[in-house]
Amino acid sequence: MNTLRIGMAGCGTVGGGVWRHLAPHAELLRQRTGKDIAITKVAVRTPAKAQAVGVPADRITTDWRSLASDPDIDVVVELMGGTKEARELIAASLKAGKHVVTANKALLAECGAELFEAARRAQRQLLFEASVAGGIPIIKSLREGLIANRILSVHGIINGTCNYILTRMTGQGLEYAEALAEAKAGGYAEADESLDVDGHDAAHKAAILASLAYGFWVEPDQLYVEGIRNVERRDIDFARKLGYELKLLAIIKMDERQAVEVRVHPTLIPRTHVLASVSGVFNAISVHGDVVGETLFYGRGAGADATASAVLGDIAEIAAHPEYRKCKAPETACLNAKVKTMDEVVSRYYLRLDIVDRPGVLAKVAAVLGAHAIGISSVIQPEVHANTSVPLILMLHDAQEKQFQAARREIEALDVVKGPAVVLRVEDFA
Amino acid sequence: MNTLRIGMAGCGTVGGGVWRHLAPHAELLRQRTGKDIAITKVAVRTPAKAQAVGVPADRITTDWRSLASDPDIDVVVELMGGTKEARELIAASLKAGKHVVTANKALLAECGAELFEAARRAQRQLLFEASVAGGIPIIKSLREGLIANRILSVHGIINGTCNYILTRMTGQGLEYAEALAEAKAGGYAEADESLDVDGHDAAHKAAILASLAYGFWVEPDQLYVEGIRNVERRDIDFARKLGYELKLLAIIKMDERQAVEVRVHPTLIPRTHVLASVSGVFNAISVHGDVVGETLFYGRGAGADATASAVLGDIAEIAAHPEYRKCKAPETACLNAKVKTMDEVVSRYYLRLDIVDRPGVLAKVAAVLGAHAIGISSVIQPEVHANTSVPLILMLHDAQEKQFQAARREIEALDVVKGPAVVLRVEDFA
Repeated sequence: MNTLRIGMAGCGTVGGGVWRHLAPHAELLRQRTGKDIAITKVAVRTPAKAQAVGVPADRITTDWRSLASDPDIDVVVELMGGTKEARELIAASLKAGKHVVTANKALLAECGAELFEAARRAQRQLLFEASVAGGIPIIKSLREGLIANRILSVHGIINGTCNYILTRMTGQGLEYAEALAEAKAGGYAEADESLDVDGHDAAHKAAILASLAYGFWVEPDQLYVEGIRNVERRDIDFARKLGYELKLLAIIKMDERQAVEVRVHPTLIPRTHVLASVSGVFNAISVHGDVVGETLFYGRGAGADATASAVLGDIAEIAAHPEYRKCKAPETACLNAKVKTMDEVVSRYYLRLDIVDRPGVLAKVAAVLGAHAIGISSVIQPEVHANTSVPLILMLHDAQEKQFQAARREIEALDVVKGPAVVLRVEDFA
Repeated sequence: MNTLRIGMAGCGTVGGGVWRHLAPHAELLRQRTGKDIAITKVAVRTPAKAQAVGVPADRITTDWRSLASDPDIDVVVELMGGTKEARELIAASLKAGKHVVTANKALLAECGAELFEAARRAQRQLLFEASVAGGIPIIKSLREGLIANRILSVHGIINGTCNYILTRMTGQGLEYAEALAEAKAGGYAEADESLDVDGHDAAHKAAILASLAYGFWVEPDQLYVEGIRNVERRDIDFARKLGYELKLLAIIKMDERQAVEVRVHPTLIPRTHVLASVSGVFNAISVHGDVVGETLFYGRGAGADATASAVLGDIAEIAAHPEYRKCKAPETACLNAKVKTMDEVVSRYYLRLDIVDRPGVLAKVAAVLGAHAIGISSVIQPEVHANTSVPLILMLHDAQEKQFQAARREIEALDVVKGPAVVLRVEDFA
């Protein structure tokens, strides 16, 4: 029997894409892997959904648990989403000796350590290329292509919805709410946008990237996550005048003392860096390795097609090489690594204040920063023809978050400063 | 014995890099692959060269042939360059049951079909990640990550020397000769620059990428190759006014009738495309797959470090998975594919003429193009305050090369046109 038999759980956007693309690529995959690949069972809550993409009625089941125990299935492809049932299905499938392919970033971020340990015990593959950055083969590149490198840092634009919204705010001068409405109308944002715009989706992916880079799972509460909901167009405009573009960036780094930081927040990137030119729904991940230097991977990070490419690639990997591959992270732990708190992180900052238009204000602000040993690299105070308040924008040199926040609070308390400060972190890739 | 024993032929820039990076990464690679990796023999013409990077005298040999027959070597790493001896070494090593890693693009472009057939017969791995785009894992991504895709096109900036020269001409307004001199002074160009600037190095890499995309080897004389030696700064300037950047681009495409084109030439790229922002010595390869859409891979394409990352990655791959991996191209042939002649290729064109400044000239030029059914998409005729000749720049719609060249010859023969036309091809990624 030279057929790899797939049981697929879930037949929504991604599952439908996998089903649609498999048939026209079956011959190609047979040539390339030496195996026929057939989806023999599809488990869905609503059979009509699977029938709508052309799955024959006799391959549809509503009992997802049956995939794990079905002796006629070699690989379980988990595309249900959610974490509770997906976790149960993956664990049971591995235990029953099946390989597993999943796109479930939330589940891996939450239970990755447990599930990869289950795969190791079962000596079965647990592949997850589709969980980060859709069709971009970033997982394979980190695990295999760059295997001879210590990873110094990973910087990723890994949420297409946020990048679309920020791109429209930048290019079309829209405010956040307008760009969000447009993204929803265009199908680039979910009806409930919070998973994307509040940064949680990017944080799940960042946890997976961190596990690949450093070989251990960062706990969800060890990640710093800040979304784009409060971004104002005028800060994008001021930043551009200073030579920066605003992106929701996932930043993963290890310092010389093996202290790791994993954070997701709106970030100013120098316009000259390739990441600054990644626009619309595209994703890109820059990986800095100690041997290779900087590399960057770019492509569509979501959608039925790009994600199907990654899922089918994982299935083909198993078809060609069904043996268990002990392969780098997440199995290799950096045993001495610790995770930094946000207070310990060092960054540059963009600080916008609303100030009273009166002599001596800049001196007062600069004095506070000076007292906290935070240097100023540039200042913009645009001409404003109104008599209430004026914006003052400061670009700051490297400072520790704790020091910076202390200075920020003191500055906000000055009587010449009105309302809260706007803070954006700056990444110079130095 | 849990050590993978490497015999390395050549200890120049790349070999020296591999030697230097292995020791500090030995423990990391052991964790990640489960094996110790040791370079047990280094074959060099001049022992002092290997001693200079720290190879102990007892591991140095001047007899490269001995690597193939040495029973204490598991993997031969061929970094000698050249094609005659390298071909003999690789063939003999495979035949003797050793895996082979090579960075030799010229050799693969010339003898790839024969060497991969030898690897298949011997059931040994022949890995070559370092042969294209240095540290960027493009070979692995094409063979494995994007395995579920038909490759529609590959566009690559794959010669760092040319990209450096063109970047300096663009950014600093240098002429070709000045930028070349600067590249030589900075170590970005060889003393004999012709392999790079005449496009041959890029053509070797294009042949390898084409073999991965389409599963067969294009004969060297089936590639169209044009270098950057004749590029003038003013054409870069005119192109920028039209919204394009000039790059030496390798273009690999298959059309619906399985006709393949493989060409390397100076190419105008729309400024909005990510490839246009790839500057300096960096390389980037855009791959368009029928499922995944557009992806792009970016990084350092040359140099001891980036190339060592790829060589060590291939060695680690063998350490982790020594079994022969039948894997996609180049072993899978598109049996019906044929290679287009340049005459059959369809492209857009940039055409610069020196014309006599007299009424009716544009009409005459346009009439010739019209007679060949070639449309004009835009025209620039800059104001020139001299009374000899003036430049006329035309951007043309899609035309077949044969038609275009016929029109070009007629235009050059017009009495109002002085001297030869300047022609640059334009890629719109449509």
